[in-house]
Amino acid sequence: MAKKKDLVVGFDLGGTKMLAAVMDPKYKILSRSKKKTRSEKGAKECFERICETIQDAMQQAGIDGASLAGIGVGSPGPLDPWTGVIIDTPNLGFKNYPLRANLEKVFKVPVQVDNDVNMGTYGEYHFGAAKGFRHVVGIFPGTGIGGGLILDGKLFRGATGAAGEIGHIILDINGPLCGCGQYGCLEALASRSALSKEAAALAARGQAPTVLKLAGTDLANIKSSVLADAFKAGDREIVRIVLKSAFYLGVAMATCVNILNPDAIVLGGGLVEAMPAPYVAEARKAMLKHALGPLVKKVQVVVAALKDDSVAMGAARLIREHLQERGRK
Amino acid sequence: MAKKKDLVVGFDLGGTKMLAAVMDPKYKILSRSKKKTRSEKGAKECFERICETIQDAMQQAGIDGASLAGIGVGSPGPLDPWTGVIIDTPNLGFKNYPLRANLEKVFKVPVQVDNDVNMGTYGEYHFGAAKGFRHVVGIFPGTGIGGGLILDGKLFRGATGAAGEIGHIILDINGPLCGCGQYGCLEALASRSALSKEAAALAARGQAPTVLKLAGTDLANIKSSVLADAFKAGDREIVRIVLKSAFYLGVAMATCVNILNPDAIVLGGGLVEAMPAPYVAEARKAMLKHALGPLVKKVQVVVAALKDDSVAMGAARLIREHLQERGRK
Repeated sequence: MAKKKDLVVGFDLGGTKMLAAVMDPKYKILSRSKKKTRSEKGAKECFERICETIQDAMQQAGIDGASLAGIGVGSPGPLDPWTGVIIDTPNLGFKNYPLRANLEKVFKVPVQVDNDVNMGTYGEYHFGAAKGFRHVVGIFPGTGIGGGLILDGKLFRGATGAAGEIGHIILDINGPLCGCGQYGCLEALASRSALSKEAAALAARGQAPTVLKLAGTDLANIKSSVLADAFKAGDREIVRIVLKSAFYLGVAMATCVNILNPDAIVLGGGLVEAMPAPYVAEARKAMLKHALGPLVKKVQVVVAALKDDSVAMGAARLIREHLQERGRK
Repeated sequence: MAKKKDLVVGFDLGGTKMLAAVMDPKYKILSRSKKKTRSEKGAKECFERICETIQDAMQQAGIDGASLAGIGVGSPGPLDPWTGVIIDTPNLGFKNYPLRANLEKVFKVPVQVDNDVNMGTYGEYHFGAAKGFRHVVGIFPGTGIGGGLILDGKLFRGATGAAGEIGHIILDINGPLCGCGQYGCLEALASRSALSKEAAALAARGQAPTVLKLAGTDLANIKSSVLADAFKAGDREIVRIVLKSAFYLGVAMATCVNILNPDAIVLGGGLVEAMPAPYVAEARKAMLKHALGPLVKKVQVVVAALKDDSVAMGAARLIREHLQERGRK
């Protein structure tokens, strides 16, 4: 049995799955519990599943509440990281939902809640591919495109806790409509959803045989892995749209370089994990071409290393720092 | 005579003019000296003029070296703020020029050198229109478009000291060629140079009567004030291109909002100072339209208040902070 009160839970609350991981003071993962989010069931059920997942992970690690020092949560936004209130996530059924307060009531330990992409970037910064850098931009292309910023070695949140919305950099004012209501955002040009939309149309026109074979023409079935398989199989039009999306990603990376002058950009998320090497190479090439020379020449582009654990590990780090700060006061 | 060693000089090294201002511990300006930069004469002469301007300001304030505690300089970049070496400013004839070391040799006091737009933003943050905010983006459209960042109340420099290159946000990948070699940067779409180019063509076509009357068709003569006068006189095509440039400025402001979630954006520089109110209003409108709602609703857009003193005041603050830090060590 672990020493009293020195374990934390890092929690990754995703739109489709949730993950709780119990970690020791050196961030060694002692146990993991995963559940489907079943977001259609509303806030109450979602909260209950969160609690069950945490309890399940604790049980697997063989610990009870006496060993638990705190819980860190990475959740989709928008949310208020200072109060732990989820402002509005239609996917999860949370609206002005006091997730931190409710978890503190159940588990009787301090809880911190922050944006999932922030936590993913934070995890990679402390434990993964972005370790040892000082100014890090995290970009995670998946269904949407999220971003996180580490500036001067610290998580940068901005005025309302929402900094790092890199998916909504406008790259082409006459481009396709984005979920946010604008035209030509990075997310509308290069997310998995944007690619699936194009791939479905290509499949329907007989120009993406591998996609048609694996997933048909329903864009809901065209996951990152299908796109990656079609790319590897050499579906010519799929190769073109994937590389074009990587190009746009690279232009947005150039904007981040010009504004923030980071020393590393970490790329992660479903699309990056699924895609073969030419995808990241193309993004890097476009970044080098479009950013200012003196700023870009020192930027390392790295691929996220922690996979499914990055958010939970970043959240575990966040709650540990919070506990240390409390300890000092 | 002021108390020993409690005065500093803030220095604004511009491409066309330079300004030295002697300031007391409360940043009250005791004297100012201005000279033309005469950049065509090379590094040696430029450095001598800098020294003369500082000495002249000190003389006007009635002080000698015994009262001087330090000198802060805002200079065009690229430069290394940690060593005070100007990397390359063709305008001033400096190439790998150790401005800090050379000034320290002459004046026997500590010197700090940073980017002029950073210093302008820093001045506005501490003493001007952006006072009281915590996360501030400074954007200064003039011949080019410079930017500066205050994040968490501190000047943010990035990995190589070059953060804040907001003029090189790419807004239209098929847009006009920029001085940096890319296409469609904010600077290529909305700087005074970009406007002058369009205005000269309009004047030549007889579509900008006020410009033609005041400045002819030579774009070198079409200054911000000419554009402003033509705007006020109602030259229809000039009004259109000016408002279009403000629109692009606003889209770039939206990108800054989405990435950095600031609480204020301060606009300054020649174009902003010269232009009538509809210019800033149009930029703000475009920002509101193109940024994410939850992030943009708390952003204040303010116009720089310190005019010609902003860089010198920011640089004075920089050197004072440096002296305080040295004092603590």
